[in-house]
Order: sequence, then structure tokens, then C-alpha cells
Amino acid sequence: MQQAALMGSADETEASFYEAMQHADIDRMMAVWSDDDEIGCVHPGGPRVVGTVAVRAAFEAVFVNGPVHVEIAHVRRLDTPTCAVHHVTERVQMVNEKGATQTAYVMVTNVYVRMPQGWRMVMHHASAGMSQDLPDIHEPRTTLH
Amino acid sequence: MQQAALMGSADETEASFYEAMQHADIDRMMAVWSDDDEIGCVHPGGPRVVGTVAVRAAFEAVFVNGPVHVEIAHVRRLDTPTCAVHHVTERVQMVNEKGATQTAYVMVTNVYVRMPQGWRMVMHHASAGMSQDLPDIHEPRTTLH
Repeated sequence: MQQAALMGSADETEASFYEAMQHADIDRMMAVWSDDDEIGCVHPGGPRVVGTVAVRAAFEAVFVNGPVHVEIAHVRRLDTPTCAVHHVTERVQMVNEKGATQTAYVMVTNVYVRMPQGWRMVMHHASAGMSQDLPDIHEPRTTLH
Repeated sequence: MQQAALMGSADETEASFYEAMQHADIDRMMAVWSDDDEIGCVHPGGPRVVGTVAVRAAFEAVFVNGPVHVEIAHVRRLDTPTCAVHHVTERVQMVNEKGATQTAYVMVTNVYVRMPQGWRMVMHHASAGMSQDLPDIHEPRTTLH
């Protein structure tokens, strides 16, 4: 019940996703996701992972190394009453072989679907990381809404 | 009216998308897309492009080189009544600097939203191409539907 209350919007579900990453919390992570057979995830440079069992296994593999130091650098949102597509740029702090901290920027598409119990993630597609934050290319809004 | 009839399902809209690529047909391409300010596109290795004006410009830049020899190698679908997420692997034929034809496989997420006039694309996110078709990782379906 608490999870449902916390995921009343796509933004709240997205916040839970990144908190789960920051805490390497697999149960919290899987509460974010829909239980649809066709949920999918593409980690940078990795294969595509489809379905709840495989998605859980993929995040468990990530969390073996402990918390992921990731946060949202910026986000744009395409919202409909039942579906939300978020264009997220993640800022990820990593430690390289020499022990130095490096920052990478990762372009991500997160897709959420509204369900009776709240908004749930159905897709997380991440491109390979870049050393700088490549700004999105867009035009000025022509309508006020 | 013809376009609406042709895009009565996400699959039909997806077919139109790839036909537009194969014919370098910018008007057909843009008929596939929603006119939402926040539609988005990530081409392999490129920046994120957001909005109808910028998305059109990005495809015009692709079509300067003529038709794109791309087809769907395989696709998995997450369908809801109002939103569809397609996990597509594209097979792309390219000619390299030496004039030889090379095949690349590209992992793509295509997202469609149902609108009064039919299904429209809202997101096309493509990862960098690979020289082989990396199979999706998934578990057997546990329910019949």
C-alpha cells in the first residue's frame, strides 16, 4: 500500500527508480516495474533484457558492485493520461582502474504506464555513456501549455 | 484520411516508419509521428533530438544520403490499450569506405501512443549498431496470453 501511494505519478516512480539504484535495493527496484511479461531494459552497451525475471537478474548483477552513484542531470517529459515517456540524462559517478572518480552522462528513455495500483516503469533504455553532457537538440515551444 | 486508415495499429504505424526510411520520404516519416512538443529521437551515437521541428530536421539529414536499407530483424511488443512499446532489432545494410556492404544490428525502442486519428510514434531510441544480432535475454512466458 505504501508503494502504491508513493508512485501516484510517473515522477514519483522515477524518483523511486533512482533511489533503488543509489541504495542497490533490488526489492525497491522491482516494485518500480510493471509485472508485464514484456517489460524491457537496455543497459549501456549491453544486450536487451525482457521480462520480470530477466530484468531482476540484470539489476541484481549491477547491484553486486554496490550502490550506483547516479542522479538525474535533466529530464524532459512527454505525458499522456496513461503513459509517460521521459527523456532523461543521467549523471553517473564511477571509479576507474586507477581509483580516480570519473563522471559519465548517459542518455536514457524511461517509459511508464498508469495502472490501477499506480504508475509503473515498463522500459529503461540507456545509450552508452559520454564524458560530457551533450545538450538535447530542440526548438522553442510554439504553444503555451 | 488515408494515413489514419493506415495507422490503425502500432504495427501499421511501425511499418510506415520503416517504409519511410526505405524510401527516404520525409513527409511519410513525419505523418508517422505525433505532433507533441516532446516527441524524441536518439539516432545511434547521436544527441537526443526533441520536438517535431528538430525531429524532422534530423531525418532530413539522414535522408540526404538517400534511402536507408533497414528492416526489422525481430520485434517484441508490450501493448496497452493506449500505448505500445516495441523492442525492435533493426538489420541495416551499409556501404563502407571501401565500397563493401556491411550489416549492422541496432537495438531500438519504439514507443507509440493511440490518438483520435490513429497510433502515432512518440519516441525512437536507437543504440549504437553491432556487427551481430545479440539475442534478447528473456525468460519463458509463464502465462498464456
